[in-house]
Amino acid sequence: MSIPVITDKQIREGLSFEVVLSAVERAFVALDAGKSTLFEVVRGTGGGDHFFGVKSAREGSIPVLGLKAGSYVPDNHAHGLPSHLSTTLLIDDRTGVPMAVVEANYLNGLRTSAANALAVRSLARQDSTVVGIIGIGAQAVFEVLAVAHVRPIRRIFAASRSSERREEFMAGIRERSDIEVTFTDAETAARSADVLVTVTPSRVPVVLAGWVRPGTHVSAMGADNVGKQELDIELVRRSRLWVDHPEQAVIIGETQHAYRAGFVSVEALRTQTLGRLLREPIDRNSTDITIFDSSGIAIQDLAAAYAAFQLLRP
Amino acid sequence: MSIPVITDKQIREGLSFEVVLSAVERAFVALDAGKSTLFEVVRGTGGGDHFFGVKSAREGSIPVLGLKAGSYVPDNHAHGLPSHLSTTLLIDDRTGVPMAVVEANYLNGLRTSAANALAVRSLARQDSTVVGIIGIGAQAVFEVLAVAHVRPIRRIFAASRSSERREEFMAGIRERSDIEVTFTDAETAARSADVLVTVTPSRVPVVLAGWVRPGTHVSAMGADNVGKQELDIELVRRSRLWVDHPEQAVIIGETQHAYRAGFVSVEALRTQTLGRLLREPIDRNSTDITIFDSSGIAIQDLAAAYAAFQLLRP
Repeated sequence: MSIPVITDKQIREGLSFEVVLSAVERAFVALDAGKSTLFEVVRGTGGGDHFFGVKSAREGSIPVLGLKAGSYVPDNHAHGLPSHLSTTLLIDDRTGVPMAVVEANYLNGLRTSAANALAVRSLARQDSTVVGIIGIGAQAVFEVLAVAHVRPIRRIFAASRSSERREEFMAGIRERSDIEVTFTDAETAARSADVLVTVTPSRVPVVLAGWVRPGTHVSAMGADNVGKQELDIELVRRSRLWVDHPEQAVIIGETQHAYRAGFVSVEALRTQTLGRLLREPIDRNSTDITIFDSSGIAIQDLAAAYAAFQLLRP
Repeated sequence: MSIPVITDKQIREGLSFEVVLSAVERAFVALDAGKSTLFEVVRGTGGGDHFFGVKSAREGSIPVLGLKAGSYVPDNHAHGLPSHLSTTLLIDDRTGVPMAVVEANYLNGLRTSAANALAVRSLARQDSTVVGIIGIGAQAVFEVLAVAHVRPIRRIFAASRSSERREEFMAGIRERSDIEVTFTDAETAARSADVLVTVTPSRVPVVLAGWVRPGTHVSAMGADNVGKQELDIELVRRSRLWVDHPEQAVIIGETQHAYRAGFVSVEALRTQTLGRLLREPIDRNSTDITIFDSSGIAIQDLAAAYAAFQLLRP
């Protein structure tokens, strides 16, 4: 008996977004209820341009603790490899026995966009029909489809610095939906959006405060390290803000800039989490701008991987 | 193509101590040569009495970075499970592609005792024939056999608080050698030893300074967390000390007590590492007492797992 491995291929073919969404929802609820523990994040570097990290946690909605090891190697594309590579290890919370290794390259796209879908479901106007997306890398397709899963999206305005990945993005959307796609600039995408999603590796704002209409929901999915930024800090200041995990958001999330500017505190953010929002829904004012800052946490990885394991194990 | 898994069974049947010893030696040499990087150690807890940890590194003697996830669940024995459980993930240093998952329960015994054997080979008198061992848990068999691999050991004096595990210890030794075993108390084991090995989870000294004869080598293998201690601090003060990794030894190793008492510094320890000893052997005075403090580091795990992978991969 060796540790079972759940493959990317199995997950791509056999795991629905719906299942991951429910698992990630239960994980955020358990986190807010104090049932989970996030351990220290490890960051290291390998050869060349290799950024390595480990996120680990005890996920209180399931009998599991474990970790995701992630690598980001920007120039992998030149060698026909994905730039992001992730592997998750699930361990029995009580006995320490390893339960499964889950290849998490595709799964990572699902678990990240599941948090986005949960935020959009909780915060965006019911009648949102237009998604603006800034950044059209591999993750962007997941994000748009996740939003379309929870709101009646009919149109996508997509912006990116180069036109290189347009075909791939379009093919990704076409594979699973017939929503109309228009490629445009960031300002038009932002001004047109009911739900605006940013998913770039940017270190300078890609959305200016004046571009975002009252009543828009913004999901800032890109920032996951010190120095990253997608939103004009003035936009954050005048909006209502939620985060996945306060302690992490103020260091590596979009929120790091508002935190350093002094207009959010970790203490205040503790009541502005996705988990709290799921447990205690709010009524949004139709003119509020709402923001969800996703920095990505291990409970998402464990919840999604355990769902995959339960469904697909040998 | 999924990630290959190398099993405990494969390793037990197909991997020699010799191969692990060479791999771990190259790893310590590379570490001292500045070719490796140890990342932050993660410590967490799971359900019940479950201590969870992650050690990760870039191991410069091989094209690998990766991690070992370890669990320690003291009461697992009551359920017929090992109390220590380890799993290693090997990742390509350049591309981030996962290479293998290696079950590391048996391997952990080999990699730990390999460091001991390297220290004994470098520090113990050539004519050492008697091993004293204090603590006779699962790891003790590995340690005694490792010492016997590098010195002409003819006799073992073994001490433990309870007689419970004696049969198991004896069977472990008998399986691989015909060295004579005598069970005794800690003082007799220490006084009789040419090479003294401590491998307990103790938090108070199990060896007093007066018990150790001039010319003895001591390998302190047990301390791997804050508060653990096996040696009388006076023994450490009057001996010559080497460690696996200075920064870790002063926090979780045996050396933490000497460090807090102020008679060792991280700076000084940088020239008193196992890696340095392997690169620049020393002449020992026949009356010196030498100590090796093993706290256990990720490069050992990665080197041993990669050796297993190279030999046993499908």
